[in-house]
Amino acid sequence: MTSEWQELIQKKRAARDALIPQEWRLPTTITSKVSPESTYSAFDLLKEAALLTDRENDITENNTATSLTAKIASGELSSYDVAAAFCKRAALVHQLTNSLTEIFFDKALERARWLDEYFAKEGKTVGPFHGLPITLKDMVHIKGEHSTMGFVGHLKYPAADEHAVIAEMLEAAGAVFYCKTNVPQTLFVCESFNNVFGRTLNPYKLCLSPGGSSSGEAAQIGLRGSIMGVGSDIAGSVRVPALFTGVYGFRPTVNRLPWAKQADLASKGWQGVQPTLGPIAHTAQDLTLFMKTVIQAQPWRYDSTALAVPWHDAPREEKLTIGVWSQDPEFPVYPPIARCIASAVDKLRAAGHTIKVIEAPPTMKAMKIAMRWFALDQVNLPFKFLEDGGEQPIADLAAMDPGQFLDPGYVPDLHENIRISADIHDYRDEWAKIWRDADLDVLLCPASRGSAVPHGEFGPLMYTILWNLLDFPSSVVPFGKVNKIVDSKDGYDASVVDGAPTGFQLVGWRFQDEQTLMATEVIADALKA
Amino acid sequence: MTSEWQELIQKKRAARDALIPQEWRLPTTITSKVSPESTYSAFDLLKEAALLTDRENDITENNTATSLTAKIASGELSSYDVAAAFCKRAALVHQLTNSLTEIFFDKALERARWLDEYFAKEGKTVGPFHGLPITLKDMVHIKGEHSTMGFVGHLKYPAADEHAVIAEMLEAAGAVFYCKTNVPQTLFVCESFNNVFGRTLNPYKLCLSPGGSSSGEAAQIGLRGSIMGVGSDIAGSVRVPALFTGVYGFRPTVNRLPWAKQADLASKGWQGVQPTLGPIAHTAQDLTLFMKTVIQAQPWRYDSTALAVPWHDAPREEKLTIGVWSQDPEFPVYPPIARCIASAVDKLRAAGHTIKVIEAPPTMKAMKIAMRWFALDQVNLPFKFLEDGGEQPIADLAAMDPGQFLDPGYVPDLHENIRISADIHDYRDEWAKIWRDADLDVLLCPASRGSAVPHGEFGPLMYTILWNLLDFPSSVVPFGKVNKIVDSKDGYDASVVDGAPTGFQLVGWRFQDEQTLMATEVIADALKA
Repeated sequence: MTSEWQELIQKKRAARDALIPQEWRLPTTITSKVSPESTYSAFDLLKEAALLTDRENDITENNTATSLTAKIASGELSSYDVAAAFCKRAALVHQLTNSLTEIFFDKALERARWLDEYFAKEGKTVGPFHGLPITLKDMVHIKGEHSTMGFVGHLKYPAADEHAVIAEMLEAAGAVFYCKTNVPQTLFVCESFNNVFGRTLNPYKLCLSPGGSSSGEAAQIGLRGSIMGVGSDIAGSVRVPALFTGVYGFRPTVNRLPWAKQADLASKGWQGVQPTLGPIAHTAQDLTLFMKTVIQAQPWRYDSTALAVPWHDAPREEKLTIGVWSQDPEFPVYPPIARCIASAVDKLRAAGHTIKVIEAPPTMKAMKIAMRWFALDQVNLPFKFLEDGGEQPIADLAAMDPGQFLDPGYVPDLHENIRISADIHDYRDEWAKIWRDADLDVLLCPASRGSAVPHGEFGPLMYTILWNLLDFPSSVVPFGKVNKIVDSKDGYDASVVDGAPTGFQLVGWRFQDEQTLMATEVIADALKA
Repeated sequence: MTSEWQELIQKKRAARDALIPQEWRLPTTITSKVSPESTYSAFDLLKEAALLTDRENDITENNTATSLTAKIASGELSSYDVAAAFCKRAALVHQLTNSLTEIFFDKALERARWLDEYFAKEGKTVGPFHGLPITLKDMVHIKGEHSTMGFVGHLKYPAADEHAVIAEMLEAAGAVFYCKTNVPQTLFVCESFNNVFGRTLNPYKLCLSPGGSSSGEAAQIGLRGSIMGVGSDIAGSVRVPALFTGVYGFRPTVNRLPWAKQADLASKGWQGVQPTLGPIAHTAQDLTLFMKTVIQAQPWRYDSTALAVPWHDAPREEKLTIGVWSQDPEFPVYPPIARCIASAVDKLRAAGHTIKVIEAPPTMKAMKIAMRWFALDQVNLPFKFLEDGGEQPIADLAAMDPGQFLDPGYVPDLHENIRISADIHDYRDEWAKIWRDADLDVLLCPASRGSAVPHGEFGPLMYTILWNLLDFPSSVVPFGKVNKIVDSKDGYDASVVDGAPTGFQLVGWRFQDEQTLMATEVIADALKA
């Protein structure tokens, strides 16, 4: 990288950090403990700093998106106080986890004030998200802000001249935007480092990864600098970060949420595994709230790729048939996840749900098909972006080389698209047979082999990419924490990840987003009981 | 073609015709008037033959699928009498139009008897289609019957060993199957001839085409040998035949109806413009009944490609905003269609609907993209099937050569799929702008340049294939007839098509099948008023 680029990077970081008010800055006694090697917990450091008032702590810690919007709509809380509390907490969480890319607290406070005035004058909210602070992954364009996504070459790009459709829709529903969040280089690895903004840290233990590519979202939401955020997922990028930071995440069926007008990441017309946006939040109810609010506002009216499939409430079923696929023997889960799933299944069985043990096709089958599809993109826009900025791929990305999953000498021909599609058809039919034979409401399975890992050690996404390939809606439910005493066994040393959150994935059939979210709520409630 | 094939063809036709009971055979005084050159109307010939009793005429002529199922469910009619009347009438219509490929009246009557017994014993119907006779395009597999689809090589294929999913589902709802219907060679032209079964004729005038590829369906339904049928549409194959025979047809959004387990027609995994099944019937209400009945039975439980998008009733709106796109200047409609649309628009405006005139992008844009996509199928299964039987493409098919729509020297490369997809994206965005700017409920436009044409004279499907490319649901509404006196003008001679039905197309946004059908009902009612 040239010194000109180095200079632009330093300028960008300095400009971002200058947007944090002096009185919200952490003392060096705290910041000196922050590094990617640190074993400190950002939860502890935030408490130690003691910069948040009791009221700010109460607003940010003792709420969900559902309760916050209700309190604002009833007049119990003002939009301004809520926005101010989250701006301040996000600034503190950022200093502990390096999770923000763009900061626009001033706009947020101005908008919150306007919302309060509207509410006072009109006696009603502008929409279901009136006053709700929402964080956005860096690719979501916000008018007047940058969408660098960690690409050095993008530092020369102008600010966005309009909102992404999702941002337009959330804003129309009343949301308050205050910052955007960090991603890994190219967004194609489950890590959190890029050359522009550096590395985002896991609030539970700074030496651990928050996962990726919705890394900054997960770090902020994990430590409640955000109550709800918008991530994106093409292979696990909403779900793995949610798992690693102990929060809820949801990957909907593709095109139920609007994708249009975001920063480009793939060749236009890209036909392979499709990305989708997805919410990250603190409860299953909040995931549903997000999906319902956006879909009821009819995204297809604003984005021609969004599907005109209306929201339909899935009636709550207190007794579910839950398939349990505890692991792929080729990629066995580590003891903390095995214990988490076994314990969840015990509780669900005790709560009266029907548990059916599922034998699944090998995950490698899905990975190989997905990688053949990715290999068909001869343009590879993210790598072109790297070249534009004189960047080398980071080690994590180089290790993700799709070539490792392809047959030796693989060269796609003109018929390969049809062949891939036929292979997906057969693979989906295998799953259809499983679903039908067991008459499943939902499938419970790992979201990853383990909990959050040390930075740079993630590896391939064996438990999430298959649902992208099949386009099955899937959520992540946090449940329990790693315990180094009980989880260190069978040669696995759990001490480095001690205290990291654990959880699992819930998967529904394609387009059954409503049912999948309903099952997520029911299961989350059963586990809390 | 070898003499061995010629012999198999003769055997096949003879076997089929032997299944028509002696007492249902038309005298030679009638059949001598039947030929592809004949200007007779099959309506007149059927009346002249006078083989149907008053009761049989009443059952087959004075009903819709909706009224028939209601009468059977109330005990007013027996399933047996209904099945017997339609078997007989279908046999007569077949002798006038050569529209059937497989005949299994015996199975139909046996099933109808069983349905009556069930009804008598249980006091209820087996489902919404209890006792409803439904015809099926030849590609829909019926256990124990053949799906030759006019391919000579298929004469050596065994009978189907199971139902197509759509047939399973219709049967589960109570339907009675009694025959399958003819198609043009390869199903890829809007004509009605193949080497196995010969040419299907238009009941309004035998020298006219019933359109294609759901040719036999249209002929049978047009002359009420069938009350409701299942066609398929990849470029207009439900809609054009419906238009040409004066009935209603609907092309739903792809994968809302189940496609699985039909006779193969495309390479497995085919990624281009997708085909879908669609109903053909006598009223708009019947189209809705078909779609609602199948989707409420959850096709995704039986076919992993069917989308789990539940049926939702679209509340009837008495005042619609109707976009009117009266023609593409590059492919102007003929006077009968121009008059039909102008007259429909006048009535709709008078009924209080808001009419907005639409300027559309050239249809050639859609045709060119679609043909690039078809050209990507290097296997071309239908042509392989022709080779298998030693067949040459018929003239109509040779004339349909996709190459005529491709740029000179066009050779697709590995990136072509992505390029096509990007082009469709842009094209859909053009339509999205039109839809939004005019805030359309539905678009009214031609389904074809003219009414039914003489055999072999159809040409490319300029007004239907665009909706397949965009995957927009679209129905055909019959309205009026060609009048050689008023329609012969501007150099157009309407005398050859005098009396042929006219009509138009109604188009909704992708996935808004329910709304499109609701608008079709409202508009059809307004035109009948």
